[in-house]
Amino acid sequence: MNRIITDICIVGAGPVGLFAVFEAGLLKMRCHVVDALPAVGGQLSEIYPKKPIYDIPGFPEILAGDLIKNLEKQIAPFHPTFTLGERVEHLNKQEDGSFIVSTVDGTEIACKVVVIAGGLGSFEPRKPAIENLEKYEGKGVTYMVRDPEHFRDKRVVLAGGGDSALDWAIYLSGLCKELTLVHRGTTFRGAPESAEKVVTLAEEAQIKLLLKSNVTEVHGEENLEKVTVLIDNATPHEIEADYFIPLFGLVPKLGPLENWGLELEKNAILVNTEDYSTNIPGVYAIGDINTYPGKLKLILCGFHEAALMAQSAYNILNPGKKFVLKYTTVNGIQELQA
Amino acid sequence: MNRIITDICIVGAGPVGLFAVFEAGLLKMRCHVVDALPAVGGQLSEIYPKKPIYDIPGFPEILAGDLIKNLEKQIAPFHPTFTLGERVEHLNKQEDGSFIVSTVDGTEIACKVVVIAGGLGSFEPRKPAIENLEKYEGKGVTYMVRDPEHFRDKRVVLAGGGDSALDWAIYLSGLCKELTLVHRGTTFRGAPESAEKVVTLAEEAQIKLLLKSNVTEVHGEENLEKVTVLIDNATPHEIEADYFIPLFGLVPKLGPLENWGLELEKNAILVNTEDYSTNIPGVYAIGDINTYPGKLKLILCGFHEAALMAQSAYNILNPGKKFVLKYTTVNGIQELQA
Ligand SMILES: Cc1cc2nc3c(=O)[nH]c(=O)nc-3n(C[C@H](O)[C@H](O)[C@H](O)COP(=O)(O)OP(=O)(O)OC[C@H]3O[C@@H](n4cnc5c(N)ncnc54)[C@H](O)[C@@H]3O)c2cc1C
Ligand SMILES: Cc1cc2nc3c(=O)[nH]c(=O)nc-3n(C[C@H](O)[C@H](O)[C@H](O)COP(=O)(O)OP(=O)(O)OC[C@H]3O[C@@H](n4cnc5c(N)ncnc54)[C@H](O)[C@@H]3O)c2cc1C
Repeated sequence: MNRIITDICIVGAGPVGLFAVFEAGLLKMRCHVVDALPAVGGQLSEIYPKKPIYDIPGFPEILAGDLIKNLEKQIAPFHPTFTLGERVEHLNKQEDGSFIVSTVDGTEIACKVVVIAGGLGSFEPRKPAIENLEKYEGKGVTYMVRDPEHFRDKRVVLAGGGDSALDWAIYLSGLCKELTLVHRGTTFRGAPESAEKVVTLAEEAQIKLLLKSNVTEVHGEENLEKVTVLIDNATPHEIEADYFIPLFGLVPKLGPLENWGLELEKNAILVNTEDYSTNIPGVYAIGDINTYPGKLKLILCGFHEAALMAQSAYNILNPGKKFVLKYTTVNGIQELQA
Repeated sequence: MNRIITDICIVGAGPVGLFAVFEAGLLKMRCHVVDALPAVGGQLSEIYPKKPIYDIPGFPEILAGDLIKNLEKQIAPFHPTFTLGERVEHLNKQEDGSFIVSTVDGTEIACKVVVIAGGLGSFEPRKPAIENLEKYEGKGVTYMVRDPEHFRDKRVVLAGGGDSALDWAIYLSGLCKELTLVHRGTTFRGAPESAEKVVTLAEEAQIKLLLKSNVTEVHGEENLEKVTVLIDNATPHEIEADYFIPLFGLVPKLGPLENWGLELEKNAILVNTEDYSTNIPGVYAIGDINTYPGKLKLILCGFHEAALMAQSAYNILNPGKKFVLKYTTVNGIQELQA
């Protein structure tokens, strides 16, 4: 088991989590940052790295990816450490008031302060409302194609009308024994070229395309054996299937954080604007993941929240020590030992 | 008389006032900016233009002057207008809820919303506690050397021990008929080279240097005629003088804003963190000039305050219109007509 000891554990390596390392570092507090994604940058790296942002103060225009690169450079003097590609699952408060944060893969971070900078939460698949669907998860029902080889020579039913349904239909068509794409509409939301290709494959009988259709039931003894498709909202139709893969996109979910006993509002963590603390002493929430009267989900707001959080965290880590704000211009940056 | 009509009048052209133009512009609100100083940039231009700042998010290092230049470029698409070199004095609420803001020089700005981004206030000279001093202001007592020629062939008494007292003593020594520098200590706070030079000038009898001394009285019929100096806290000594120039530094003062009926705390304007509004509806305060629980006088905090202020101002300028936040990345920047 991997155990890390630090001052502050930051959950989320988006722009706000990264800048929190800087504000903490100015006050000589060390940070360890955990992110479920394999790279830092949050939404900016994952969703729009090549797009320009216009409302970062002092940058008339900056590519999202470049902003993340700049932030990495800005925090470098404070030598933060990272655990990437692991989702944070549990928060345990210790007798002495400190915390153990642990990830899905068993990494443990021992810290005095926890800063949740989890953005919109971790992205999870949107599941269709089908009775017993969850019973077959891992037994034929899956929401993601991790390894296409897994489906070679199997009977597969895909559902959805967006890019990932179209792309996987095209990719798997040459691989599966039998492939059916079920879509509730008659036109696709995905790229027109992909939609055309799928229609051609259906005409060539390489895949079976069911439009104006919905999967309504799943059946099987232990593992999935067949699904029921309602065609034109009228005719039920049974299809034998080893796999059913609904591809209805990802929705951000607070996920594991929902069970930490945090006060929530509108799927976000309610904070006190004095220091962006949550209802659990020692736990802060900054950036897109928090809410308060007037909240705007903007990067520049998360930066401010990080600064006020750091002042308050300082008091937890240095009880009784008086803090005097010093301007960086006057004091410069004092590197922390790696 | 000069009258300007705009949506928002911003008092103060520091970094926060400038960025407020940007946030207002994104919501299609026009701004007019007024500053008592002759240039934009507030403390950054006035006090430390050539010094690097390290805690502007996304800039591992940026010169204060460059940050201001970038902000000017960032707000250019919204064509703000400026009145520089005029101090704002009065705020008048009109019957219809709008405002007339007026400057010391009589410029009037008619607007629906007022945003005070006045930083530490306007800088005013620190005055020594001498009875009747104010009676002679403009009649021999002055706190600033605007035009040195004014003092040619006059008898001048300077007081102070910092750089400006030393620098003016050196400069005026060749110009005045009689120049006395009065300083309460025996060592100077100003640059050592300047202090040495002043001592040399005194040895050469080019100036009269009175150490461990204080000006305690000012006299004269109508205009200043002489001052009393207490030497070594013991011997009173009279010096004939056309001018007395106390140079004890500048102190920021809320100044005229103090009489606007705003709720004050710790020499700052108390605001609601939901939108950084003051107790006067339609009047906001952002940046160094405001206070609230957790307040930090940092540039990046003022940026956040500007963003939340703009959302709230939008509701005043567009009653009943629903505002939907759009990301700049998605929507770009829509230029406002000049
Ligand atoms: C297309 C688009 C355009 C945008 N344009 C702008 C713009 O112009 N200006 C602007 O200010 N904002 C813009 N935004 C919003 C901006 O991206 C967000 O405000 C910003 O990303 C919030 O930063 P953050 O650090 O709070 O969270 P995020 O960037 O969302 O990062 C949160 C991180 O936390 C991780 N995480 C969550 N839960 C866990 C967990 N349990 N364990 C481990 N890791 C976890 C996530 O994987 C993620 O990497 C835009 C957003 C989008 C999608
Ligand atoms: C040496 C030094 C180093 C600093 N280093 C840092 C740093 O590293 N990081 C950081 O975040 N901050 C730093 N600061 C603080 C930073 O400069 C301030 O937070 C910032 O300037 C506040 O911006 P502002 O726009 O609110 O006000 P200001 O910059 O003070 O601008 C206010 C403007 O309002 C004008 N004004 C006031 N009253 C009136 C009136 N009645 N009529 C007309 N005009 C008026 C003033 O003339 C002034 O131009 C430093 C400050 C100093 C002095």
